[in-house]
Amino acid sequence: MSSASHTHGFRVALHDTDAAGVLFYAHLFRHAHDAYEAFMASIGWSLDAMIRGRELALPLVHAEADYRRPMRHGDHVQVAVTVADLARARFTIRYRFTAPGGELLASARTIHAAIHPDGGRPTPLPPGLAAALWASREPAG
Amino acid sequence: MSSASHTHGFRVALHDTDAAGVLFYAHLFRHAHDAYEAFMASIGWSLDAMIRGRELALPLVHAEADYRRPMRHGDHVQVAVTVADLARARFTIRYRFTAPGGELLASARTIHAAIHPDGGRPTPLPPGLAAALWASREPAG
Amino acid sequence: MSSASHTHGFRVALHDTDAAGVLFYAHLFRHAHDAYEAFMASIGWSLDAMIRGRELALPLVHAEADYRRPMRHGDHVQVAVTVADLARARFTIRYRFTAPGGELLASARTIHAAIHPDGGRPTPLPPGLAAALWASREPAG
Amino acid sequence: MSSASHTHGFRVALHDTDAAGVLFYAHLFRHAHDAYEAFMASIGWSLDAMIRGRELALPLVHAEADYRRPMRHGDHVQVAVTVADLARARFTIRYRFTAPGGELLASARTIHAAIHPDGGRPTPLPPGLAAALWASREPAG
Repeated sequence: MSSASHTHGFRVALHDTDAAGVLFYAHLFRHAHDAYEAFMASIGWSLDAMIRGRELALPLVHAEADYRRPMRHGDHVQVAVTVADLARARFTIRYRFTAPGGELLASARTIHAAIHPDGGRPTPLPPGLAAALWASREPAG
Repeated sequence: MSSASHTHGFRVALHDTDAAGVLFYAHLFRHAHDAYEAFMASIGWSLDAMIRGRELALPLVHAEADYRRPMRHGDHVQVAVTVADLARARFTIRYRFTAPGGELLASARTIHAAIHPDGGRPTPLPPGLAAALWASREPAG
Repeated sequence: MSSASHTHGFRVALHDTDAAGVLFYAHLFRHAHDAYEAFMASIGWSLDAMIRGRELALPLVHAEADYRRPMRHGDHVQVAVTVADLARARFTIRYRFTAPGGELLASARTIHAAIHPDGGRPTPLPPGLAAALWASREPAG
Repeated sequence: MSSASHTHGFRVALHDTDAAGVLFYAHLFRHAHDAYEAFMASIGWSLDAMIRGRELALPLVHAEADYRRPMRHGDHVQVAVTVADLARARFTIRYRFTAPGGELLASARTIHAAIHPDGGRPTPLPPGLAAALWASREPAG
């Protein structure tokens, strides 16, 4: 599966920026989540259906980002999404934010745990989801 | 009941502003809602308990704001909340945003309809809530 | 100019919703502003260039919205943007939010005043901008 | 200086939550930044004055959070802010989010680099700021 199918674009909106003139750091995670939602829908596991179905939840247990270049109002940004790690009841998504010329602007990672929505107990990833995530993992170094 | 009990203060945060250097207009409604939540809790009708109880919902059917003076990063703002109108299954909240010296910075209104959360049918306001809102209505002009 | 060129689509993201399960009302204005930014860019008046140029600012002096149908996580929404009113130093943008089948979900209006960014004095709209807005005005009833 | 002076409280607002019923992860960073702004003001280095002064900027180069317990609408949360690391042109802030009973809900870290706002070149922290941060560092293990 080509990585091109797991990219998500956005333009830095006025409300993404702050009085210092650049994207406010927390909003990077909002865009990361938009890319994650689009990725999950593309592999057949839409978050909205999952949340309504109440059989599986995938809450974040960790999030982090590194900021390399400021993003300014009007900038076009591409987000490439890959699966960086996959375990029995947990997976890691990696995000690379790049400018149109390919320059790396920021990177991020989110770790998601699989739980039962009602009790909060860990649960193995359903085989179909694990297989779809496996197909989108990063190429080995 | 003194109007002092229905005020809510905030400081304009960096993430409230945008690259034009002032509070982004949509964030005024976020602060209005914080003031509304605090007001509802102060009259004994916390929104969180209401949403969990699933017996009554009060969705917004209208929101509006007038912006008089720009609000800048670090500014202290007071929000005064009053009940501007009250009907059988609907009420209007008015918000006045002022600077420490009393200058009017912005005003807003939200109209809330009482419905059953599950079917969405209109329902009369519970008598206790109607009475509490009535006690907080604006003095007649 | 066809109205089709002034539409903007979005999918209701998880972060657009709240614990009541529907789009939080203030976020409608964020999406309205995204549609406004896209509209302004489409007529050659990108807000980012305008804000950096520091020759003209178009702050909102009024915003309002009517909410007809709840918008839920995952819903596809189209925003149609038109110019509802145009004066010497002020204009009104109207937004219609519709479902894929055409059902009206919400509508909104924003009024923008033309000012000098530094002093805040009102200033007439530049002729090129006034002409572009005029070309996008709503058909007379 | 007692750590009590570096705490910041908030109540989880409706707009902090999402359709899964808990605080949306990116909003934790918004609250972390509110706590950081309050901390910086408390040591005499208000971010708003700094951004307007245009002599020093402290952009984030890294942010991360660990989520232990879901935060729900209406929950009271305390944020304790400490300086976890301090170097010549960079410092790390640590945030501990706790429930009223002291239970750890989440923790976060942000790393800030000192730069000249105009060119973006690294610059040493001003001695007064370095001293104030030093006074707020975490006790050695």
